[in-house]
Amino acid sequence: MSELTLAKANAIIEAAFAKGSEVKMKPLTVAVLDAGGHLKAFQKQDGASMLRYEIASGKAYGALAVGMGSRWLDQTAKERPHFMEGLNAVSGGKIVPVPGGVLIRDASGKLLGAVGITGDTSDNDELAAISGIEAAGLKHQAA
Amino acid sequence: MSELTLAKANAIIEAAFAKGSEVKMKPLTVAVLDAGGHLKAFQKQDGASMLRYEIASGKAYGALAVGMGSRWLDQTAKERPHFMEGLNAVSGGKIVPVPGGVLIRDASGKLLGAVGITGDTSDNDELAAISGIEAAGLKHQAA
Amino acid sequence: MSELTLAKANAIIEAAFAKGSEVKMKPLTVAVLDAGGHLKAFQKQDGASMLRYEIASGKAYGALAVGMGSRWLDQTAKERPHFMEGLNAVSGGKIVPVPGGVLIRDASGKLLGAVGITGDTSDNDELAAISGIEAAGLKHQAA
Amino acid sequence: MSELTLAKANAIIEAAFAKGSEVKMKPLTVAVLDAGGHLKAFQKQDGASMLRYEIASGKAYGALAVGMGSRWLDQTAKERPHFMEGLNAVSGGKIVPVPGGVLIRDASGKLLGAVGITGDTSDNDELAAISGIEAAGLKHQAA
Repeated sequence: MSELTLAKANAIIEAAFAKGSEVKMKPLTVAVLDAGGHLKAFQKQDGASMLRYEIASGKAYGALAVGMGSRWLDQTAKERPHFMEGLNAVSGGKIVPVPGGVLIRDASGKLLGAVGITGDTSDNDELAAISGIEAAGLKHQAA
Repeated sequence: MSELTLAKANAIIEAAFAKGSEVKMKPLTVAVLDAGGHLKAFQKQDGASMLRYEIASGKAYGALAVGMGSRWLDQTAKERPHFMEGLNAVSGGKIVPVPGGVLIRDASGKLLGAVGITGDTSDNDELAAISGIEAAGLKHQAA
Repeated sequence: MSELTLAKANAIIEAAFAKGSEVKMKPLTVAVLDAGGHLKAFQKQDGASMLRYEIASGKAYGALAVGMGSRWLDQTAKERPHFMEGLNAVSGGKIVPVPGGVLIRDASGKLLGAVGITGDTSDNDELAAISGIEAAGLKHQAA
Repeated sequence: MSELTLAKANAIIEAAFAKGSEVKMKPLTVAVLDAGGHLKAFQKQDGASMLRYEIASGKAYGALAVGMGSRWLDQTAKERPHFMEGLNAVSGGKIVPVPGGVLIRDASGKLLGAVGITGDTSDNDELAAISGIEAAGLKHQAA
C-alpha cells in the first residue's frame, strides 16, 4: 500500500467515531489529510462547534509540516514558543499545535498522511485518532 | 428538519458518487457545507487532483454567499465580471464561480447548506450534486 | 519508482538548462515540486529577474492543482477567465496559468510532481521542461 | 565578486549536505536566498518533511530582514518576543527565528545573501550552513 485511499480514510473516521462513542467523548470532528497536506476525507458530528474543520485540519497539517505527531508541537510550543510562532507564520497560519494530530504510516513506515481530531480533551482526541488508524490496519505516530 | 445532520451530508456524498459511477464521470470530490459556510462532510475519490477540496468548497461557498446556485455565479461572472471579482475579493478569495455548487433546502424551503462538486464537466458536477441532494430527500437550487 | 527523489529532480533541472543552452534561451528558472505541491529542488540562472521563483513554481503548482499541464490552464483562462480567477483565488494566489508547467509521471503513469520553468517564451519554457523530464527517464504531461 | 552566482549557491548546498552526511545529520533542506530575499537555489533531501522549504527560507529571510544571522533572532525572540512578533507580522509571516539562517558575505564584507537550513537540531543546521558557506570560499555571519 503506497498511498492513502478514500476507503482507508473513511475507515479511520468511522473507527475514531466508534472510539469516541465507546468512551462517551463529546461530538468529534475528524480530518484526514494525504501526505501532501491535502484533505482526503472529513466528517463533523452533530453538535460540534463552528471552527472545528480548521482545528482538526490544523492539527494534522502541523504534524505533516515537521514529520512528527502534534504532541511534539505541543511540547515544542511550550519550550520554544518563538519557533512555533514562526512555523505557524510561514505555514500561512495553518497549524494548531496541540495533541490530536497523528501521522499515518503503512507497515513499512512510509508516510501516507495524517489525521486530526478535535472535540474532546486533546488526550482523548489523540486516543480517537490512534484508534482510528489502528482499526484501518495502519501505523500511527503521535509524537 | 431544521439543520443539516451528518447523516444527511454523508447520504448526499454517497448518492453523488453513485451518480458519478453510473454515468462514468471522472473521480469526483464532494464538499458539503452547512448554512454558515462551514464544512460538514467531505470525500475525495482516488485519482482526483491536488486542489479539489478548494474547488469543491469554493463552489458551495459561492452559492451560499449570494443565496443562489453557483450556475448563477457563472452567468454573473460573464455579464458583470467586476462584480464577481469584488465578491471574491471580499470573501477572502473563497469562491469558484462555475456550476457544481448547489444549495440544499428542506421541504419548507429553509436553507440547510450547500454541496460543491468538482472532477468532471461543470454540468456533470452539478448533476451529481442534484442527484445527491434528491437522494437524501432534500430540495436543491442550482441557479 | 514511486516518488520524486532529489537525484531525479536535480537531473531534470540540469537537462532543462542544457536544452536552454543548446537553443540559446534566456536565463531560465526551474522549480520542481512533489505531488503534494511542495518544493523539492530549484535553481535560478544568473541574470534571471526578481520574481522568477514565484512564476516557475506558480506554473508547476497550477498544473498539480487540476492534474493537467499548465498549457491547459492557459487555454482555460482564455475560454473561462472567471474559472481561472476563482481557481487562483482558492489557491491563495499561487497559480500562473501559462505554458511551462509540466506534470511528471513515472512509467506506470503515476503522478510524481511537476516542473515549472520561466525565462524565455512560454513555448520554450515548456520545451525545456519536457526535455528535462525525458532526460531523467520520466514521462511528461504538458496539457 | 559582487553578487551570488548560481555556481556559488549550488556549491554552498553541496558542501552543506557533505557536512550533514559527515556528522550523520537527519535529511537536510537548504535554501539559498540572494541579498534581496529572493530564492536562488534550493534542495530538499529525501525523507525531509512537508514544510521544510518554508522553514529553511524562513530562517534565511529573517536573517536578511535584520542583517544578522538568525541566532540573533532566536535570542531576541526570548528577550523581546513582541519585537519578533511584530517583525514577523510586517514581513507577511515569512520568518522562522531560530538558528540555521546564516548571512553570506564576500571577502570585503559585502552582503551577498543568506542560507537557511533545517532538518536536524538548530545548532547542527547552523553548522551545516557555515560549512557550506566556507567551502564556497565566502564569509559567514551566524549571529
